[in-house]
Amino acid sequence: EQENKALLTALKGKETITADGRKIKLYANMGNVSDLAAVLQNDAEGIGLFRSEFLYLEKDRFPTEEEQFQIYKNVAETMAGKRVIIRTLDIGADKQADYFQLEKEENPAMGYRAIRICLEQPEIFKTQLRAIFRASAYGNISIMYPMIISKEEIKKIRQIVEEVKADLEELGVPYGKVEQGIMIETPAAAVISDELAKEVDFFSIGTNDLTQYTLAIDRQNAKLDVFYDAHHEAVLRLIEMTVANAHKAGIWAGICGELGADTELTERFVNMGIDELSVAPGCILPIRKIVREMDRA
Amino acid sequence: EQENKALLTALKGKETITADGRKIKLYANMGNVSDLAAVLQNDAEGIGLFRSEFLYLEKDRFPTEEEQFQIYKNVAETMAGKRVIIRTLDIGADKQADYFQLEKEENPAMGYRAIRICLEQPEIFKTQLRAIFRASAYGNISIMYPMIISKEEIKKIRQIVEEVKADLEELGVPYGKVEQGIMIETPAAAVISDELAKEVDFFSIGTNDLTQYTLAIDRQNAKLDVFYDAHHEAVLRLIEMTVANAHKAGIWAGICGELGADTELTERFVNMGIDELSVAPGCILPIRKIVREMDRA
Ligand SMILES: [Mg+2]
Ligand SMILES: [Mg+2]
Repeated sequence: EQENKALLTALKGKETITADGRKIKLYANMGNVSDLAAVLQNDAEGIGLFRSEFLYLEKDRFPTEEEQFQIYKNVAETMAGKRVIIRTLDIGADKQADYFQLEKEENPAMGYRAIRICLEQPEIFKTQLRAIFRASAYGNISIMYPMIISKEEIKKIRQIVEEVKADLEELGVPYGKVEQGIMIETPAAAVISDELAKEVDFFSIGTNDLTQYTLAIDRQNAKLDVFYDAHHEAVLRLIEMTVANAHKAGIWAGICGELGADTELTERFVNMGIDELSVAPGCILPIRKIVREMDRA
Repeated sequence: EQENKALLTALKGKETITADGRKIKLYANMGNVSDLAAVLQNDAEGIGLFRSEFLYLEKDRFPTEEEQFQIYKNVAETMAGKRVIIRTLDIGADKQADYFQLEKEENPAMGYRAIRICLEQPEIFKTQLRAIFRASAYGNISIMYPMIISKEEIKKIRQIVEEVKADLEELGVPYGKVEQGIMIETPAAAVISDELAKEVDFFSIGTNDLTQYTLAIDRQNAKLDVFYDAHHEAVLRLIEMTVANAHKAGIWAGICGELGADTELTERFVNMGIDELSVAPGCILPIRKIVREMDRA
């Protein structure tokens, strides 16, 4: 135990690279500003999933652009040039703040949520995008959009983003170069990932949702545990297809769901060509260890 | 209108075959015994989806083996040698009879339903299977299982079926040759359809559920209509993959969801190599017309 801890500590500052020279971006997931200490302590190479929902869930009203900007700026500055991928609002009838006034739904997991809310209520979306773009002047910020199923959605997003950028330019507010990616977490997105890859800068595979939709099993429903298979072959094939399609289009692909931290699968993912794994801070060093011990030469 | 009706009537008794000679099985969906008249009137070549749930939903207790047997036998006899595909119980927390005592679920569409209930409560399943096998002595009956996601489920089903057959044999009760297929209505099943095809006699693609899981959109939720695309490319690709994998394994594949009756897609499905379309009785002749007008030579 003690020995293992020392071994891991020795990996801080080291690269996440296989013995045969393939480098993996090893990022951390963050669900709150208070996670930042653990992110730094565990030597994350970036933040692969900044769950911006918490900003909304901890309030009894929409967070203002200024409030959001301060937090994004703070994270970007603290990460000091390392990539910070902010996922835009991912909320729905099952996980919401009252002030959103979302109606109760029969199947909230397949409901009005995430990017669907942002596209139907663009004033909410624009406030967040303005805050993110303003913060991008202070670090290395990327954006990713959750629950995408089509190119049409990406086109609508692009249009709103262009409006936000034009507004900022008109006001003389600086912003940085912001990469824009999408979550691949619906079977639809995985299956047409060849098409989607042409529209974005990167993919981040959300394995929790991807698995529940692929298997048609609510991952919260304990009654279905006997049917649930976290390593279902269909999910692994969709991941592999997504990575291959990303590379064909010249973009990178990572995993930010729980499967990304599943050490039984690390080798398989690296062999698929995965470019990034974003995991809970405490999983960073154990995964770095596995990757560094891999030798496919 | 009048003219069109006459044209369609003239198609009764005709084959469903393209001008270049490719034959399609054109079957009817049935949701109740009272649909049988329409099935015959519209010259269905078989019943591609007999929704056995109605037997359960119209009662305040489980239908007995004898009650089920009489109904299946009646349908099989009435169809006089034409194929009757009985789908086993497809029920869940969102569509149930009280006596099932299913607990309320957060996401019933991805919940404890269909084959999952049958595998966890095999006494319910066995009663239905015994009734179906007994009826198979009186006509051309096939069985299909809903909501399959894995080979393991098929193996468990096979084991229960063998027990049922052994029981009947011991009692000297006759039964016919019963083909057994599965619904392909989860993304998982479509993605591993190459594996599943080795385990069954046919596939029937349930496009309604397949679409809702693939898009992660509850098809009953009107709020999502703006995002729903019934002709989403991902769904069409999964259908095409399923048909190709069926053929590779030497089995046939059909469609029994709403998309099967979508005349905008009939040509596309025939070109994919679909073997069967099972549709509402009133759609039989219009689709036969389209198929007969197709010439790919
Ligand atoms: Mg998600
Ligand atoms: Mg279904």
